[in-house]
Amino acid sequence: MTQQVQIGLIGLGTVGTGVARALIDKGRLLEKRIGSRLVLKRACDRNVKRGRALRLSPSVLTTDARVVLRDPAIQVVVELIGGIEPARTLLLEAIRRGKHVVTANKALLAHHGHELFAAADRAGVDVYFEASVAGGIPIIKALREGLIANELNAILGIVNGTSNYILTRMRDKQLSFHEALAEAKAHGYAERNPSLDIDGHDAAHKLAILTLLGFGAHVPLSQIHTEGISRVSLADIQYADELGYCVKPLVIAKQADGKLEARVHPALLSKSHLLANVNGVYNAIYVHGDLVGAELFYGRGAGQNPTASAVISDLADVARNIRHAVAKRVPTYAPHHRPLTVLKMDSIETRYYMRFTVIDRPGVLATIASVLGRCHISIASVHQKERRAARVVPVVIMTHDAREADVRRALSTIDRLGVVKSKTVAIRTEASRGK
Amino acid sequence: MTQQVQIGLIGLGTVGTGVARALIDKGRLLEKRIGSRLVLKRACDRNVKRGRALRLSPSVLTTDARVVLRDPAIQVVVELIGGIEPARTLLLEAIRRGKHVVTANKALLAHHGHELFAAADRAGVDVYFEASVAGGIPIIKALREGLIANELNAILGIVNGTSNYILTRMRDKQLSFHEALAEAKAHGYAERNPSLDIDGHDAAHKLAILTLLGFGAHVPLSQIHTEGISRVSLADIQYADELGYCVKPLVIAKQADGKLEARVHPALLSKSHLLANVNGVYNAIYVHGDLVGAELFYGRGAGQNPTASAVISDLADVARNIRHAVAKRVPTYAPHHRPLTVLKMDSIETRYYMRFTVIDRPGVLATIASVLGRCHISIASVHQKERRAARVVPVVIMTHDAREADVRRALSTIDRLGVVKSKTVAIRTEASRGK
Repeated sequence: MTQQVQIGLIGLGTVGTGVARALIDKGRLLEKRIGSRLVLKRACDRNVKRGRALRLSPSVLTTDARVVLRDPAIQVVVELIGGIEPARTLLLEAIRRGKHVVTANKALLAHHGHELFAAADRAGVDVYFEASVAGGIPIIKALREGLIANELNAILGIVNGTSNYILTRMRDKQLSFHEALAEAKAHGYAERNPSLDIDGHDAAHKLAILTLLGFGAHVPLSQIHTEGISRVSLADIQYADELGYCVKPLVIAKQADGKLEARVHPALLSKSHLLANVNGVYNAIYVHGDLVGAELFYGRGAGQNPTASAVISDLADVARNIRHAVAKRVPTYAPHHRPLTVLKMDSIETRYYMRFTVIDRPGVLATIASVLGRCHISIASVHQKERRAARVVPVVIMTHDAREADVRRALSTIDRLGVVKSKTVAIRTEASRGK
Repeated sequence: MTQQVQIGLIGLGTVGTGVARALIDKGRLLEKRIGSRLVLKRACDRNVKRGRALRLSPSVLTTDARVVLRDPAIQVVVELIGGIEPARTLLLEAIRRGKHVVTANKALLAHHGHELFAAADRAGVDVYFEASVAGGIPIIKALREGLIANELNAILGIVNGTSNYILTRMRDKQLSFHEALAEAKAHGYAERNPSLDIDGHDAAHKLAILTLLGFGAHVPLSQIHTEGISRVSLADIQYADELGYCVKPLVIAKQADGKLEARVHPALLSKSHLLANVNGVYNAIYVHGDLVGAELFYGRGAGQNPTASAVISDLADVARNIRHAVAKRVPTYAPHHRPLTVLKMDSIETRYYMRFTVIDRPGVLATIASVLGRCHISIASVHQKERRAARVVPVVIMTHDAREADVRRALSTIDRLGVVKSKTVAIRTEASRGK
């Protein structure tokens, strides 16, 4: 008889429903590929209608997660409710009871991954979380196993589909941020309360996970500089386009000489950059390793089926481990071989796009340039726009590499000048590399 | 004491040297990540200078592969000599002696994979071959593990860097095929005898492996229609460019309703296709699965370090298996759940780019169109070029989907017409999908 793996699923929302349906519809196929039968022993949701829509038998359905945790037959608990609590408590109890755990919960992992991983180590069970970053793209497995021989220099990613959709639509349809956001909501690409996505926090959670796997470093969220996309205006997208750039919602982690940068913000990317053509709700992760050079992993970062695909690949790993009586075959992450210091945002260096709104009068550019110069910021190019016969005109400056602290100091001085009529917009630029 | 995994390496060419160097230089790092120490116990090459350049101790170096195979301490044999023999015999003996096997040998796997896998199953050892397709891109692991929940519809790939480099340079620098080939040779991107690459055979070997993993089907090379790039002319690249296409050296496997297409040929791709921006020596694999939709894996497909990265990720898997006393944890491939029929080339349907070289005379287009119509080929667009004041002009026709057999029949009729002055060029077009 084929071995069975008994699964308890907590959360029958979009992804949970996708996982349950795939386990039912693809049961025979998965059994053939994995060598064990994945059995949905229990499925839990507070809303009983969700389970009924799946036609799960009443003996499988429960509204009480403790029923799942206390079922001694269950070997793996899949947590798909999201958020910190009660997910954290439930998973810790599952681990304590010796159950392996599969989760898509990036917020929980970013905030409490350390606690979960330590508990799992003590209990000798595995924690898998392929679905927590970039949905259907098997990036966790790639970082943890496929690229194991590499020391990474950089991970750049577009990992929030909502933000990428909004910036893509702003550019393609010349929409304002709010128009594009409304469209994203209408299509179901943005939550009613979209703040987690558009403010960059969801992306920061994912970056924390990528940084753990790619660099072996637990970076607290408080040390990940996080900016959302809501201050990106259509005007900046248009100017960037004219200069050969697009604006993308990036997560960035870089490592050099034991120093680690980890930041989340919209950035200008040259149109020839690998990530520049990642549009709409698509996600992609760009990785640069010492052996492989540049790699890109592209696909759907969210949605019922892509995310279910990732959850089931984790279940397949667990099932294979159970079949061979192995656990902790692949450690959750390998700590970096030397201590890494997280760079303070003030000391990072990058090129900047700056848009000044100034009175159209001789000498204004000289004044701005002189402040930039005093702050050690070197100008790469200046673009004066004369779109309207107004007294106030935009001036766009691209800088060479400049220190973040210097940029802040310069802009705070410039924004106090009488000739500057609005707060200066500054967007970091990410250099093209390895294409 | 940390467990050790004793490795025997056969072949110290470019890739073998890269593997040996990474094992030496990264020994501590890999030990930390894997939990076992990867020890290069024996290294074999007929050319003793290669081993000496690596400063390997004389007790490690040998010129006799049998010394590697007969060393009872060796647990894994890494074969990096390439070609069918003696690689096949050596690997079969290694397997018979109970050693796990890691190889980058796509020709061997495409021709004799079945024999090797069956022998490994009997002996209870693993055969890993991440390095056999697309170098540093962990596509084998992605297909076999990461995407396990998916039924694939299509795998399209650019898996021969030499061919992709040549077509890229022809377009970017307006070079003839022979000029671009000479340049590729000068840069070391093409072998002195480049036929394996430019005639499509290397790509066909890789497609056989991708088809095995992606569709669970052993497709004999004789059933993979294989065309090289040598008949692609600069003129066709230019016309394609004007029409919004680029010409790429593709491998294509598609499955629908139990019917499988497997073919290797240059193809027109819309410039908006995900694979259209894969240039130079870079490789990429596009996968379309029922759950994940479209995915793309991009990176360096060859070269010392990217390929060494793949070999070492296989060694890490073997080392983890050995550490946990597991073998055959992941089967080499899962046979497709129903028998697949390989479609004969005659019955595939695709759009075509056709370039006719005709006498510039009224009625010629009507004659050609009427032959196409009689053969059930429907015209999507006609582009008459008038570049030179010559009596003979090119006419480019893009068709709708047409059966291969009909196209051959039509062109054979058309090429016999008196008004047609050269053999008609026909290049298949691959539709953009899932972007």
